[in-house]
Amino acid sequence: MKPILFEPVASPYLVPFDGSVRLADLPTDPPDDAPGKKDNKEALEEETAKLQKLQAKLYAQDRYAVLLIFQAMDAAGKDGTIKAVMSGVNPAGCQVFSFKAPSAEELDHDFLWRCWRNLPERGRIGIFNRSHYEEVLVVRVNPGYLAGQRLPRVPEPLDALWAERYDSIRDAERHWARNGTVVLKFFLNVSKKEQKRRFLDRIEDRSGNWKFSAGDVEVRKDWDKYMDAYQHAMRETSRPWAPWYAIPADDKPYMRRTVSEIIVRTLDRLDIAYPEVSDAERAEMMTVKAELERD
Amino acid sequence: MKPILFEPVASPYLVPFDGSVRLADLPTDPPDDAPGKKDNKEALEEETAKLQKLQAKLYAQDRYAVLLIFQAMDAAGKDGTIKAVMSGVNPAGCQVFSFKAPSAEELDHDFLWRCWRNLPERGRIGIFNRSHYEEVLVVRVNPGYLAGQRLPRVPEPLDALWAERYDSIRDAERHWARNGTVVLKFFLNVSKKEQKRRFLDRIEDRSGNWKFSAGDVEVRKDWDKYMDAYQHAMRETSRPWAPWYAIPADDKPYMRRTVSEIIVRTLDRLDIAYPEVSDAERAEMMTVKAELERD
Repeated sequence: MKPILFEPVASPYLVPFDGSVRLADLPTDPPDDAPGKKDNKEALEEETAKLQKLQAKLYAQDRYAVLLIFQAMDAAGKDGTIKAVMSGVNPAGCQVFSFKAPSAEELDHDFLWRCWRNLPERGRIGIFNRSHYEEVLVVRVNPGYLAGQRLPRVPEPLDALWAERYDSIRDAERHWARNGTVVLKFFLNVSKKEQKRRFLDRIEDRSGNWKFSAGDVEVRKDWDKYMDAYQHAMRETSRPWAPWYAIPADDKPYMRRTVSEIIVRTLDRLDIAYPEVSDAERAEMMTVKAELERD
Repeated sequence: MKPILFEPVASPYLVPFDGSVRLADLPTDPPDDAPGKKDNKEALEEETAKLQKLQAKLYAQDRYAVLLIFQAMDAAGKDGTIKAVMSGVNPAGCQVFSFKAPSAEELDHDFLWRCWRNLPERGRIGIFNRSHYEEVLVVRVNPGYLAGQRLPRVPEPLDALWAERYDSIRDAERHWARNGTVVLKFFLNVSKKEQKRRFLDRIEDRSGNWKFSAGDVEVRKDWDKYMDAYQHAMRETSRPWAPWYAIPADDKPYMRRTVSEIIVRTLDRLDIAYPEVSDAERAEMMTVKAELERD
């Protein structure tokens, strides 16, 4: 499997492309020798400053699009990471879509439709807070949802359906890459223990507990099934043109820094540059300049 | 004419609602006693920090939407103002749409269609860089564009067409306000002389002159016609539920500060607040908490 648009940056968190990943082996904590909180915050600031500059060039050049996909269990820190990493990036060049339970209109289409129509245009960074991966995560854990999808055929056994879906996702992402979209996928890997701590904090925090939903705790009961679904999804869809990174999420500053570094290092390797002005355009400008000066 | 959602904040740049505005009387420069550059930059930072907090509440409450419309002649500073004013606002709660020449699909619909479908959802701040107003600005100055709009009827004389369009715009914006969208419209009022200076700067700046388009200079030849079209548009559509502010644009730091202050002061008056947790919800949380602690 060769890269298409870009060579994925090396990282201990890059999910291998050969389907060998074992979720149980992936850390949810930073390594022992990881930098401290202050160092992570400073590094994040440096990375976001670099991202601002890269985004300005990306937008001016209008050739590549960038799609960042975030998936995670509740309270892993998707929203906060998106906010921290994109902070200061010109909002005109950045689009965030949060995918919720599909609407009736969305259910009347194939499962990629709502994501496809919200892909970033060239020159933009699009962020998917949840994505088409929900179709092989929440739906795989709760196959009862399939009934609402009005599919005229459902392969049996269901494993055949998931296999088809992975195939469709791989094909779509490869097509996007071929046509200029840089796809990076982040699984924010929080531990069950840390999720419990964060839920309890949310309940305690009287100013912030409107965010808390009892439904989030229900999902927790299916933790192992979700981990299995994530493992399948990452094995089947981490590819050089659309790599998954499974980022330890129990330490937020470390997670944000790590995500930001991967994005910046990926974009840094592309031939992103301000458009060049040709000699003919330059000559026209000189004519216009003379005209303006007489105005 | 009574306000609907909000009372427009007073400002020397608020365009009156009685159709009396005279564009020739509107300043393109800050007043003599205006604060200096450093002061404007500091004030802008304070305002954007306030806007970040207001936006977080707006998003959590999920009741109001905010639509900020920016219109101006070229080089007035729309892009830079949008970037400066929205800087640091969570990109998940902010959507920028830049309207360009309409596509074939867009031309096959009524002139409000493409804007309407891109209105911000509740809880979001939507920014229109250009908007449906182009239909009574660039199209009014160049009525030849109407031929591409495939209209089965065009009222005669054309003044009747523009009157209908103002009417449609007023009706739409009033409807949006009734249903929860705060509409603020900014005309960034740059002088013809300052535009010339900025165009010449762009031509000189070898790293930035890929932005320059000779077509921008063509538009300049119709300056007076554009000013007349802006005056008509603002007279006909500045209303308490969708006010126009005509901001002096010859001094960028002053302009950005002024725009930011108007947005923040408008939102500050709305009853934007974090959702309250009811006693029943609180009780449910306590049950969930006990359950989590046993987990």
